[in-house]
Formats: sequence, structure tokens, C-alpha cells
Amino acid sequence: MSAPVIEKPALRAGAFGNAKALSCRECGHHVELGPHYACPECFGPLEIAYDFGTVTREQIEAGPRNIWRYKALLPVPDDIESSPNTEPGFTRLLKADNLAAELGLTRLWVKDDSTNPTNSFKDRVVACALSAARELGAKVFACPSTGNLANAVAAAGARAGIKTVVFIPSNLEQPKQVNSAVFTDSLVAVDGNYDDVNKLASEIAGEEGGWAFVNVNVRPFYAEGSKTLGYEIAEQLGWRLPDQVVIPVASGSQLTKVHKAFQELVELGLVEAKPYRIYGAQAEGCSPVSAAYKAGVDAIRPVKPDTIAKSLAIGNPADGIYVLDICRETGGAVEDVTDDEVRAGIVLLARTEGIFTETAGGTTVAVLKKLVETGQLDTSLETVVINTGHGLKTLDAVSGAVRPAATIAPTYAAFAATGIA
Amino acid sequence: MSAPVIEKPALRAGAFGNAKALSCRECGHHVELGPHYACPECFGPLEIAYDFGTVTREQIEAGPRNIWRYKALLPVPDDIESSPNTEPGFTRLLKADNLAAELGLTRLWVKDDSTNPTNSFKDRVVACALSAARELGAKVFACPSTGNLANAVAAAGARAGIKTVVFIPSNLEQPKQVNSAVFTDSLVAVDGNYDDVNKLASEIAGEEGGWAFVNVNVRPFYAEGSKTLGYEIAEQLGWRLPDQVVIPVASGSQLTKVHKAFQELVELGLVEAKPYRIYGAQAEGCSPVSAAYKAGVDAIRPVKPDTIAKSLAIGNPADGIYVLDICRETGGAVEDVTDDEVRAGIVLLARTEGIFTETAGGTTVAVLKKLVETGQLDTSLETVVINTGHGLKTLDAVSGAVRPAATIAPTYAAFAATGIA
Repeated sequence: MSAPVIEKPALRAGAFGNAKALSCRECGHHVELGPHYACPECFGPLEIAYDFGTVTREQIEAGPRNIWRYKALLPVPDDIESSPNTEPGFTRLLKADNLAAELGLTRLWVKDDSTNPTNSFKDRVVACALSAARELGAKVFACPSTGNLANAVAAAGARAGIKTVVFIPSNLEQPKQVNSAVFTDSLVAVDGNYDDVNKLASEIAGEEGGWAFVNVNVRPFYAEGSKTLGYEIAEQLGWRLPDQVVIPVASGSQLTKVHKAFQELVELGLVEAKPYRIYGAQAEGCSPVSAAYKAGVDAIRPVKPDTIAKSLAIGNPADGIYVLDICRETGGAVEDVTDDEVRAGIVLLARTEGIFTETAGGTTVAVLKKLVETGQLDTSLETVVINTGHGLKTLDAVSGAVRPAATIAPTYAAFAATGIA
Repeated sequence: MSAPVIEKPALRAGAFGNAKALSCRECGHHVELGPHYACPECFGPLEIAYDFGTVTREQIEAGPRNIWRYKALLPVPDDIESSPNTEPGFTRLLKADNLAAELGLTRLWVKDDSTNPTNSFKDRVVACALSAARELGAKVFACPSTGNLANAVAAAGARAGIKTVVFIPSNLEQPKQVNSAVFTDSLVAVDGNYDDVNKLASEIAGEEGGWAFVNVNVRPFYAEGSKTLGYEIAEQLGWRLPDQVVIPVASGSQLTKVHKAFQELVELGLVEAKPYRIYGAQAEGCSPVSAAYKAGVDAIRPVKPDTIAKSLAIGNPADGIYVLDICRETGGAVEDVTDDEVRAGIVLLARTEGIFTETAGGTTVAVLKKLVETGQLDTSLETVVINTGHGLKTLDAVSGAVRPAATIAPTYAAFAATGIA
């Protein structure tokens, strides 16, 4: 299966760096690198297979302060830095002593992707998709999305100077429309829900030549971008792996890629092998993977999402079964929290560490708390929690929960009466 | 003048690093380091005086990837990294070829501070103020503000675990309240305009002991944080100065500090001396410095601000006269643009470089364009434009200016009819 057709260009040597093929995650069948996403033998998902050779810490450390320092581990050309891109990544890894104390953890870090160029981890994956689109000779860079992905694609496309078309549901709140429309004159509002928008995108992908849909026909390249979260965590810890990582689960791709990144680092000798546990975080209103984990089953039963954590609201997560495998194998877990806990998680992270996260991050922090309270996470071990996006994009979630402590007349007497001093 | 009183703690050795005294910008009188901001002799502004000794590129490059790599050049202790802070700075310096082509410039860079922890350059100055507050033994960290400063103070205070009180006008839009209230349970809404809030802050500063108001009694420390923008530009260009820099002017402090940073780098032998031009950017609705520049006079005539660029709306800029001096001496200029040009500047930067800036950045980009069009800037010289903040905070400014290209039924036929493919 290889739709949509991108007219086969003369691929230049090294167009995809150390990537050597597309490999089926289910049956292992190999397909040549190109705009393909499903195995022609078994329809399983294709992912990138590499022949890394030698990669050293020194080589990485000499690279730029963004995801391209890991270019040898990504399906991108060696001259990737010279192509205009948003230069995402190498975001803060903050030691979170206040939050650790609040939750009773010994050692906790927050990997903060809210400071990426368009304020979410999507800038990482989109940068890899953009490179693939460019190398494959795509004429149009596109996605269907309601949020972070739309922003990231619109911004990256603008900077790259490639025609960029972003499809959104026409009932999307106007501020969210602005955050993409500001970057592109080709924002298309579709009368329908997100499923309708997605279906239309697939239809266009089938009809039009030369379109690179980041999360459809260049998805294997796109998904690899999430590995950089794992690489950065390890490098920023001083080239070692943490004991436990808590990661939000939407499609599940990010969690599987962080695990893949850790494994690659071990295989390449860049970090020492050690046991680590991976935990998945979902919102109760869209928790098909958590439900399967708790039921002890392998099959994911799709759900109709109903949660404020909209960036996690994928009712039928493509990588859900792999998330289950990884969390079980590593001794982690998958947990879910209510919308009220999500809101409390946002405020907890803000008030302890000065980080304003979106609902997905609120979910992850709230799940971390629940994992501690239920004894599923070892509080004596070093833990990393991933914050994938920015609270400015989901202001409504907490607007009822936080407010001024007092409203006063502009006098010292009025202030003194508040007792705040 | 030294209000408010911070109870004199036993200052530890090296509390302010290489800073040696407070020096009056007008008369040169020296005052010992402490919570003082105005000269006891002439009431001129105090700024930090240093005894740097030797500082090397290697020493800086071995430091963390945030402003503390320049700690030897700031009034902070040598162990500053170990005190919880938001770790701001070392933001992207993006080569802006698309915007350069659009404007007819040979070589242009955007220094993008919208990716700081709370999405503006204020995280830099607040981090330095926080260090001073800590070293001076302050019990409360505070500011009056309507926007970026409030966010930065609330976040930094939360992370530092210091009691943090932020004063805002009670009629501030609710989303902006949320962006500070999420970090602190001591947000105080004041019935009055920003001037009333400011006056109340000064009154509290006079009445209460142990309060560090970032932009009042620890202002000299706070202001030094803006120097890091200049250091980073030089380091990111490969340890050299650009030919021209365009900087927004509110109080004028940032522009004077970038100039100071460049001078310090030259004096320390960290970059080669060379001529450079500094340009100031204002919005027409609050352009007292630009007006004085154009009139060829030295005195700034205060104005009542009326512009959408609210983060630049300081009608009586404290450092306006120094901005005039620097822009004139270096061969630069001060220019202003209309609110419509500000909006167009925001969209121009987004569509060419994928950066969504706030109104202050729209002002700076629009001024850059006007400087080119009026021949005040040399298009053959290397130019840097500073983006100080994020468009998510001033969404309303462009919400009428950008929109979907089409709204369609969810069918391929409907899409094909748009002509977008």
C-alpha cells in the first residue's frame, strides 16, 4: 500500500541518512524507502530500519543545539541543518524538586517540550516529515489536525517555503484557527468532525500526486522524530538512562519511540544498558490502552473520546498494542485520570515548577501522582515525566480553576486587609 | 534612595559574582550592592559595575545551555545553576532567508525569545532579579504588570519556592489573568489602571520589609538580564558582532543592555571590535523616543499610549534618552509604525519564517521593513532583528487579519473546486 503517489524523483544519495529501508513491524518484510506506510504483505505498520555504523557521543555533542545533533540516528540527510526548518528540540530537562517533594519522589525531572518552536513536541516529528517530503520531491506539505500538529505543520511549511495545506474542522474555536492561519494562506475549514476531516485528507492523498501528508504517507519518517525525546533525556542526564519514564499516550507512537531511542542508545554503546520502566498516561474519557492494560488483555477496544485532553483523544490508537507490550515488558503500567485530575495536574505543575502545561501534560502529571499513590511507581527511583505541550493552547481547561486571590481598591490599606502580606 | 527596605542579611561572599558596586549612570557615584535603584546624590539610575577579570570563550561554552553560561558577566553567584530557576535563554538565532528576500536584505537573522520558558525575554531579566532577591534575603518576590512580566515572575517564583505576589489591573482580560494565576495563589487584582497598580506597588514597597519588586528595588540586577540577548547573538554568530540590530523600545532598557553587552564582549576580547548600528522600534501610538529622534532633540516628551502593542506602551520611558544616544552614536535610528503595520509585521514573520510573534515583535519586524524602505538601514549589511515574545499572548491582534482560505463540505469534489490543489 503506497498512497498517495508522490511522483518518484531521482532520490539523491544519502537522502535518508543511515536509514536503509522500511520494515514491517508485524512481519518484518522490507520495502524500499519512500512514501509508504503500510506493509504490502500484511498491512502492518512500516517503520524505518537503519544501518547506523559507528555513532559517538563526541559526534553528537559537536552538533547543533536542536534535534539535528541526532541526525545520524534519524532518516534525514547529513546536510539537514542547511535546509530551512524550525530547529526544534534540545528543550529543557528541569530537575523538579518541588514536584518531587509534593509527590514523595526521590528524584524527578520534567522534559519540557512546551518551549519548542510552536510549543509542542509535534515540531520534532514534523521536522522529520518535512525532510522526507523535501527529499521525495513533494509539492505540497499537508495534514488534517485540530491543534498542535496543525500549528507545527503550518509553521514548518512557511519556513521551508513549501506550499502547505492544513485541514481543520470548521467548528474549531477561532483562537485555535488563528494559531495556524497566521502561518499559511491555505488553511481549509471542513464542515464536519475530525473523522470527516481525516477521511477527506485520505481521499485527497489518493487523488492528488505530490502531496506529503505528514501523518499519512510520510508517517514512518514523521514518527521517528519522537525518538529525539529519548535521546535528549539520556544525553541531558549525562549519557545515562532514567529508571522510570511517564509518557502520554494518544496514538501511542511517542511512547514506543522513546523506548526505541533508549534501545538504540544501548545498542550503539552510547549509554550503559540498565532496566527501566515505561509508563503510559491517558485521560479516563479516552483510555482504551489503560483499559486493556488493567483488564490484562492484548486487544484494544476502540472508544468514543470524551475528555478535555483533546490532544490525547484518539479513540483507536494505532500503536496501542505496542504500548501495552512495552509497558508490560519493562515493568511499567498504563494509568488514566479524570478530567478534574487533569486540571489539578496542570495547576500542580505550574505551582511547583513554573511550567504551564496543556491538558496532555496535566494528564501525565496527574497519572504520575496516581501511580505513586497506587504504589505502581517506585518513589526511590529516578523518574522523568514528559510535558508535550503548552497551556496557552488549552487556557479554557483551567480558567475556572485559577483566579486572583483578591480584588482590591488601589490603596495600601486595602492590600493590608487581604492578609497576603 | 533605597526603598523598599530589605532587611539586611549577612550577604555571603560572591553573592553577586563579579559585580562590585552600583554605579550612577548620570554622576558616576558608587553605592554598595543592595536593593537600591536611584543615586543618593543625583537621583540618576543605578546600574551594576563589575570587575570582570578574565573571561574566556571556552569558559562560557562549557557552561549550561541557558543564560547562566554568561554568569561571569552577570550580578549572580557562581553557583547560580544550583538554585531552582526557569533556566531561560540560549534561544534560537534563526537565519531568516525568506524574510530577507521579501525585504531585499542580504543577510538577516531573527533572535527568537518567544521560545523562552514563559515565552518572552522577561524570563531573562526575572531570573536575574530572582537571584538578587534570594541573595538579599527577600521574603516576597513581586511585580506590578499586565502581561509578560507577570507571567515570568509568577512562574519563576513558583519554581524557586518563594512567596510571589503579582499585581494586575482588575479589568485585565481573563485569559491573561489565567496565564499568571495558574502559577500563584497570590495574584492580586487592583481596581484601577496600570498606573494605579504601579503606584500601589511602590506604596507597598515603602511599607513592607523584605519585598523584592523586580522592576523597582532590584531593578539594576533585573535589567542586567537583557545583556544575555547581546551575548547570545554574538556567540551564536560564531563570536562576532552583527552589523545592524533592530530592537523594540518600551522603557528602552533592553536596547541599552544589548549595546552594553556588545561593548563588554569587545572589552573582554571575546569578539573583535567593529562598527555596528543599533535601531529602536516603537509603535506610532506610543513613540516618544522615535518622535524625539526624528525631531533631533534630546528630551523625551511623555505620551499617553494608544496602541495594540501593549507590551511596548510605556509613555515615559526611563531609558529613552540613552536609547537616543546609542542609536545616534552608532549610526542607527529610531522608527515607528502604525497598528496596521504591526499586524502586517506579525503575519509577515509568521508566513516567511514560521515564527508567531506578539505585537511587540510585529512592531519590530514592521520597523525593519520601514527602515529598509526609507533607506535608513543598509540592506547589504548583516542584520539581526529581536523577537521578544509570543503571538499566543496577543491573539486578538491578528484574529481579524487571518482566516481559512475556504470552508468546504467534507468531499474531494468540494476541495477540488477551491483551486487550492
